Amino acid sequence: MTMIQDLLPQIESELQRQIARLDEPRTRPFHEMLTYHMGWTGEGAGPEAQGKRIRPLLVLLTCAACNADWKAALPAAAAVELVHNFSLVHDDIQDNSGKRRGRDSVWVKWGMPQGINAGDALFVLSNQAILDLASNHPAEIVIKAAKILHNTCLDLTRGQYLDMSYEQRTDLTIEDYWPMVSAKTAALLAACCALGSLLSEVDEATQEAYRDFGHYLGLAFQVQDDLLGIWGDSTLTGKSAESDLVSRKKSLPVLFSLGKEGPFARRWAEGPVRPEEVTGLAEQLAAEGARLYTQETADQMTDLALQSLRIADPQGDAGEALFELANKLLNREG
Amino acid sequence: MTMIQDLLPQIESELQRQIARLDEPRTRPFHEMLTYHMGWTGEGAGPEAQGKRIRPLLVLLTCAACNADWKAALPAAAAVELVHNFSLVHDDIQDNSGKRRGRDSVWVKWGMPQGINAGDALFVLSNQAILDLASNHPAEIVIKAAKILHNTCLDLTRGQYLDMSYEQRTDLTIEDYWPMVSAKTAALLAACCALGSLLSEVDEATQEAYRDFGHYLGLAFQVQDDLLGIWGDSTLTGKSAESDLVSRKKSLPVLFSLGKEGPFARRWAEGPVRPEEVTGLAEQLAAEGARLYTQETADQMTDLALQSLRIADPQGDAGEALFELANKLLNREG
Repeated sequence: MTMIQDLLPQIESELQRQIARLDEPRTRPFHEMLTYHMGWTGEGAGPEAQGKRIRPLLVLLTCAACNADWKAALPAAAAVELVHNFSLVHDDIQDNSGKRRGRDSVWVKWGMPQGINAGDALFVLSNQAILDLASNHPAEIVIKAAKILHNTCLDLTRGQYLDMSYEQRTDLTIEDYWPMVSAKTAALLAACCALGSLLSEVDEATQEAYRDFGHYLGLAFQVQDDLLGIWGDSTLTGKSAESDLVSRKKSLPVLFSLGKEGPFARRWAEGPVRPEEVTGLAEQLAAEGARLYTQETADQMTDLALQSLRIADPQGDAGEALFELANKLLNREG
Repeated sequence: MTMIQDLLPQIESELQRQIARLDEPRTRPFHEMLTYHMGWTGEGAGPEAQGKRIRPLLVLLTCAACNADWKAALPAAAAVELVHNFSLVHDDIQDNSGKRRGRDSVWVKWGMPQGINAGDALFVLSNQAILDLASNHPAEIVIKAAKILHNTCLDLTRGQYLDMSYEQRTDLTIEDYWPMVSAKTAALLAACCALGSLLSEVDEATQEAYRDFGHYLGLAFQVQDDLLGIWGDSTLTGKSAESDLVSRKKSLPVLFSLGKEGPFARRWAEGPVRPEEVTGLAEQLAAEGARLYTQETADQMTDLALQSLRIADPQGDAGEALFELANKLLNREG
């Protein structure tokens, strides 16, 4: 993955440049909240704390695979990563989650009010980043790019609304799964590929194929994440407290079995699952067909993703890197 | 104020149109959180719950006073009001404030996590609204308008950061006041006038004069608000619990006297002010010169605002309405 290794430092420095808008004497501690969250400063800073930067990589690789200059797309790459991180900062507050990439969440370190504001700032910075495309792209294209970004952000709030509202509901089925994960996970990955190809000014059919690739990649990734959240090696042995069954996540296998209204659904309705029940309940889910269904769905989404990517016909090293990235994301171990 | 009466229903319907992006079957209750906050639906809905729409009025009146078609500026008017309301929804969570315009805050009705998400959605909708200008304006102008909006939003997060960080600090003086209120209050009013004149494509000097008008109008408004928060009729008689002295707001008169390090500063350092102390402490502040200083500052900012407006030389009924609006905002009673 040599091309990816070349892109990562460029992504990091573009992100730093965007976030430096807050690097002024009076707001230096505010700037520090963001550089901490991005994994650059503070305790535990380093590559582990920075995340994989999948989204900006998708933007740049798509661009390069369309034979365009990926450097000119850097502001868009920064924008999608800033959006992703804005949503993480707010998510952690909404889920009362104290850890992010192994370190204290922003709100734990600086309090909830400053945490909300730090998330808001990341969001603003993403809007500013996307308009920086204007130095290398025609104004009409910049507006199209900004529209893609904003539509995606609205999808994120829709997905977040659905996810949170599902916590109170007891009448869910797999029908309720797709609108949530399409908006919460797949929309941003689709936007990355849509942006990369838009900025390359390839034909609309190709842009559509790249967008579909990102969309199905997001769905495949999410479904596989759901599978590992219950039957992954670490969630079955030793770390059962981290099982999605304990956190009551409305994942695909859970929604599948809730729709069956069998023993799993009856146990689920009784309330929180204790870590010592996890192994047995995972077996019950599998017996009701949830594991097979989830695995088949993951495979199906993976096929659709790779099929879309083949239609897009990505070129050169970047094209190879896109297939590698997809395979790496979708074949990971639990 | 007949022109203002004509504009208000148009502003309301443009806002409804923008927010309708969330009016879909699965997200209807989410859409309802926003229509509730905007004052259109739910208990206590009506003009009182909607606020005065000062910011969109400034956009449209500025535009009309530059002899341009204000209808083409409606998306920008909606955008600034959506930004304002996004900041209110998050402010209420950050300040733990349960009421907004006499009704329960969004987070009180739907919980903190959904409240954060509702604010985020208003923010996204403001970004989408500003790009709607593209149907009536050249792409380059739309990008300039979006940049003004985003720069202002970054200022809002800076101002919010400063405001919240001041709560912990004991070393503040009037030097610390201006960066906070410039970013938190004046920036958005300046942006309204900048947007209205930008979209009219008047010369840059005129745009600058309008921007200055909005900036000083915001400062004058804030300083007067600070004055009324301590010496307003209602805060001195009967409603002393609502005094800025009780809420420990770092307002201009308070910062003025903290810088003096006299009896007021010593009492302030001892901790929260009880409602029964409010009258005496307000007298002490006045004795230290804080009231006179604040009044003189308010007058000075008002003069600068009106002077900038005269330089901008607004035309026709809209021009008159701008002067009226400024006078109405700045001569209000406590």
